[in-house]
Amino acid sequence: MIPTDAPAVSVESLQALLSAWFAPWVQALGLQVESFADGEVTLRLPNNDQLSRVGGMICGQAMMSAADTAMALAIATQLGDQRPMTTVQQSTSFLKPLSGQDARVTARVVRAGKNLVFGEIDITGATDGRSVCRASTTYALL
Amino acid sequence: MIPTDAPAVSVESLQALLSAWFAPWVQALGLQVESFADGEVTLRLPNNDQLSRVGGMICGQAMMSAADTAMALAIATQLGDQRPMTTVQQSTSFLKPLSGQDARVTARVVRAGKNLVFGEIDITGATDGRSVCRASTTYALL
Amino acid sequence: MIPTDAPAVSVESLQALLSAWFAPWVQALGLQVESFADGEVTLRLPNNDQLSRVGGMICGQAMMSAADTAMALAIATQLGDQRPMTTVQQSTSFLKPLSGQDARVTARVVRAGKNLVFGEIDITGATDGRSVCRASTTYALL
Amino acid sequence: MIPTDAPAVSVESLQALLSAWFAPWVQALGLQVESFADGEVTLRLPNNDQLSRVGGMICGQAMMSAADTAMALAIATQLGDQRPMTTVQQSTSFLKPLSGQDARVTARVVRAGKNLVFGEIDITGATDGRSVCRASTTYALL
Repeated sequence: MIPTDAPAVSVESLQALLSAWFAPWVQALGLQVESFADGEVTLRLPNNDQLSRVGGMICGQAMMSAADTAMALAIATQLGDQRPMTTVQQSTSFLKPLSGQDARVTARVVRAGKNLVFGEIDITGATDGRSVCRASTTYALL
Repeated sequence: MIPTDAPAVSVESLQALLSAWFAPWVQALGLQVESFADGEVTLRLPNNDQLSRVGGMICGQAMMSAADTAMALAIATQLGDQRPMTTVQQSTSFLKPLSGQDARVTARVVRAGKNLVFGEIDITGATDGRSVCRASTTYALL
Repeated sequence: MIPTDAPAVSVESLQALLSAWFAPWVQALGLQVESFADGEVTLRLPNNDQLSRVGGMICGQAMMSAADTAMALAIATQLGDQRPMTTVQQSTSFLKPLSGQDARVTARVVRAGKNLVFGEIDITGATDGRSVCRASTTYALL
Repeated sequence: MIPTDAPAVSVESLQALLSAWFAPWVQALGLQVESFADGEVTLRLPNNDQLSRVGGMICGQAMMSAADTAMALAIATQLGDQRPMTTVQQSTSFLKPLSGQDARVTARVVRAGKNLVFGEIDITGATDGRSVCRASTTYALL
């Protein structure tokens, strides 16, 4: 549930944060907000020629970047969009390549403390639903 | 020292790999090869409006992506450019923001085994030389 | 399901691996196998004076060590106990302290490839069930 | 240089912290302070039957635990021994096995901010000096 003192969150408001918060190069990932819950956001990362090299595989750099971006939005669903924060650490594991389909990026707050927020990200094939990348991250609230 | 069975490595050949190996979106980082040694590469990551949001700070996504990209080139200086490989894991720590200057990205092979290569990346301010980001990475040789 | 060419797995056989595979100092953690499934094991890590310093909090070193140990057993449930392996990387996040209760350590194989196995570990309070520590790990099959 | 408002640091005072700060099970590692500098500590981790399983190899659990322990002391050389702190995250890479010799564990503060301290740990063979394990860690100051 969204805290009552936070502005209402919607797919549109989160999509707007993607433009407001992130550098143009990050926006060029073409991330689309699909759904959200309290402390959780799911984005679609399109597979296209800009993000892949050989074999139509989405590059790892795009997956790490999408994971970090999704987590910032997941935190916003819980703490609102007025809370300055910064990524402290991100650990990313690449389980297998993803080719021939978009990726679905689900970020979830695991624990939100007073100064630190811990989150986890799962990236799956949008078609087959299989995990291809997992990340854990620590954010500092400023 | 470059193994004698590897093609000669030069700043130009490494710069060419940046175009040959990486997705257009990664190339849009504008990375420039500055120098190299056996198992080590230093790239410049330009600070510009595409890579920063507020305050002229280079975004963390660009730093993670530059780190991964630099490590692939560092491995190429040691194993040549014909060896297929993939990133298995990357752990990145963001020590402090970088604003108002380019970044220098130095990737170094820490250990190259038969199947796995371990590396470390240090990102510093190109002007003040202070560390802003550290990453450790594991690559699998295929 | 356990592959048919693997020896039958039981709580007792996994408990026996704790003695067979691990150094005496690791055995001194007093880990107890509680349950298992294919690719998953749950251990109990007792909270006692040996593992805690002030405030009856289980030390982080014990949690990292229990996580690594549990993952080796989780892999054994899937690949059998004859497969040599070694930890390549472990990333551990400490969400909050755990005091006044035992810990429950659940390790799960996320993906088992030909050469590498990826896993995740969740450590919770055995009484309140709340997550206190998360880890992700990469194992190499030798 | 040690801040003038911090108590004088010595090999003996750091060795005393090993007993004062850590759980008996961690003390059983038998860590010995070898040397220190501002923000840096080197410990010896003895290789013995308690810490190894087959082949006289020091177990990974002991290396992760020694790394975390060494970092707490490294921070104490810089911030004094009165500052409460806790490990937030540790990422550890196991480069190769270590057998037939003790380990030397060097922890170094990479950046100490107001709320967070970043550190790196290098574990080498005490005889051959070769790196076998690297870790990066984030501590929160409380």
